[in-house]
Amino acid sequence: MLAAVLRGGELTLQTSLRSWRALSSIAYNGSYRLLKSPPLVSLDLLEDWTRRVDQDHLENVAIPKTSNQLTAALIDGKTIAEEIRSEIADEVRRMKSSIGKTPGLAVILVGDRRDCQIYVRNKILACEEAGIRSEVEELPESCSEDEILSALKTFNENPEIHGVLVQLPLPERFDEGKILSRLQLEKDVDGFHPLNMGNLALKGREPLFIPCTPKGCIELLLRSGVEIMGKRAVVIGRSNIVGLPTSLLLQRYHATVTVLHAFTKNPETIAREADIVVAAVGMPNLVRGSWLKPGAVVIDVGTYPVEDPSSDHGYRILGDVCYEEAVKVASAVTPVPGGVGPMTVAMLLLNTLESAKRFYDFV
Amino acid sequence: MLAAVLRGGELTLQTSLRSWRALSSIAYNGSYRLLKSPPLVSLDLLEDWTRRVDQDHLENVAIPKTSNQLTAALIDGKTIAEEIRSEIADEVRRMKSSIGKTPGLAVILVGDRRDCQIYVRNKILACEEAGIRSEVEELPESCSEDEILSALKTFNENPEIHGVLVQLPLPERFDEGKILSRLQLEKDVDGFHPLNMGNLALKGREPLFIPCTPKGCIELLLRSGVEIMGKRAVVIGRSNIVGLPTSLLLQRYHATVTVLHAFTKNPETIAREADIVVAAVGMPNLVRGSWLKPGAVVIDVGTYPVEDPSSDHGYRILGDVCYEEAVKVASAVTPVPGGVGPMTVAMLLLNTLESAKRFYDFV
Repeated sequence: MLAAVLRGGELTLQTSLRSWRALSSIAYNGSYRLLKSPPLVSLDLLEDWTRRVDQDHLENVAIPKTSNQLTAALIDGKTIAEEIRSEIADEVRRMKSSIGKTPGLAVILVGDRRDCQIYVRNKILACEEAGIRSEVEELPESCSEDEILSALKTFNENPEIHGVLVQLPLPERFDEGKILSRLQLEKDVDGFHPLNMGNLALKGREPLFIPCTPKGCIELLLRSGVEIMGKRAVVIGRSNIVGLPTSLLLQRYHATVTVLHAFTKNPETIAREADIVVAAVGMPNLVRGSWLKPGAVVIDVGTYPVEDPSSDHGYRILGDVCYEEAVKVASAVTPVPGGVGPMTVAMLLLNTLESAKRFYDFV
Repeated sequence: MLAAVLRGGELTLQTSLRSWRALSSIAYNGSYRLLKSPPLVSLDLLEDWTRRVDQDHLENVAIPKTSNQLTAALIDGKTIAEEIRSEIADEVRRMKSSIGKTPGLAVILVGDRRDCQIYVRNKILACEEAGIRSEVEELPESCSEDEILSALKTFNENPEIHGVLVQLPLPERFDEGKILSRLQLEKDVDGFHPLNMGNLALKGREPLFIPCTPKGCIELLLRSGVEIMGKRAVVIGRSNIVGLPTSLLLQRYHATVTVLHAFTKNPETIAREADIVVAAVGMPNLVRGSWLKPGAVVIDVGTYPVEDPSSDHGYRILGDVCYEEAVKVASAVTPVPGGVGPMTVAMLLLNTLESAKRFYDFV
């Protein structure tokens, strides 16, 4: 499992193993059995510029070469997420039979945004399937801040609830930062609390929860055999909930990360230098084939619903990446839907499970 | 003062002014009178990819052009820091005469590392000069963790102390993260607490304290008239105390930031794309002239003491940048010493002053 980050030679190996052993004694390392991704502090490496990983070595572990005929591999998030969810269900059963306890997730949904309702419904269905208890508090668009905070307080205090999330975005008039800061840190399964974010950013620190979408992106890369260390990674978009934490996480995996945003000059030129491109803007087809280096690995986080009467639900979801063009240039691409989306839900279940295990001190 | 970040057009202007006004009512915005840098949340901009700042516009505010004959301007951190320290002294006097109170800084110094002793001495001298009370707790190399924590507790509880810092690095056997986490958040004038770091990273959030060196780097750029928004910035080194927070801060100023580290392939090629280079590795002459784009602005954070019997103190300080080569390529460079170092000390005084103003609710 650690092999992916241990190719920097002896120095790297020793550092990682030391951290890894130190963490073995911590109760919350259970999730690493389910995921390819190790504890973050085990990724920390000595910053020794006199012993830089040499270039030739890195060439050896490069992303597969491409030809003009290549069609990119599809990174099948749906199937990977189903595998993980099945393992989570096993673990929930083991917990139930061992200590008679079940993880619980609470969701607060404010207003009647169609997309938010769909996301929440999907999360609840996924909980049911994994054997995780769930509760939803639906509040009308017209509710007061006090009503949201009161619902939050109830869930914070409920010992049968181990994860609480406020479905974002909230209606504009609410102060999201203020509301999220009332969420009990130990139940912040979305990982959006600034203390979690700080611990995600800082070497030597381990956040209680890694935000679900970034965690899912990394897992897709690892399970697809993509080397991250030493690679150029570009994250397009810098939202607090996806772009920023994804860039911090990729950096902890020792990618050389550049974050592109709306004020970036020539984003396509910079993106074209990247071995790994994560697009998280929410603008359909922003990333064209010309934005990609041949052989790049592309993770498309974008989800943009557009009306489509011919579809089952009356709409369909578009990503940030022009898929038809990307498959001709990239070595691997996540589809939308069926890429990052299912992974986000799986990571939410996993964060909830881990939170419950920590709460009950169940290893 | 806001002009530097307001050149993105109407949209930008409105967003920034809204945030700015919202912050005007917060007690701790006092420091923005002394600095060019506004509250971070006033930098937050709508991520609207349909209205990207156009390239031509950005060309107009580019860094000055260079010729082969050019010798880079020297960014005189020493003089800028003296100006700021003199303004801090004025403000300390005003506080004393208005409410009879004086800001207080406490420093915990463990062991007998020569460089740490010098840094602490410089901080204490700077406090005296600005009229800030200071206390130093010197503990021997052989002290226990409990002794450090006990000193920390005493300072945390002392209402006349408004800033506490533990001089880093601690001797290796100590768990820095654990010790720093005991520091009272409201007195964390170094800004190293993970909650501060999360608030530095997240749009819409304002940390209680911005770490001193990154804050000093930004101030040098702003006072030198260097546009940050839309520029390519490269931060070389990703330490928790300099590289990481500097990259987060530059990103909040809307630079397109790439962090280079020891596992980066071809760092010189990437650095050569940057308009702004911040070097914070601690390896003398790592950054050669060939690493720089003509006209780049170079901030050298490196401080590496080498023995030099011919010097007054028996040693001299080297930076990360090969100064002789850099001045032939860059448009502006900070010297070492006399660049970032004095700014770090000035920012520490400012953070301490601001902390005291917040404590006494003194505007």
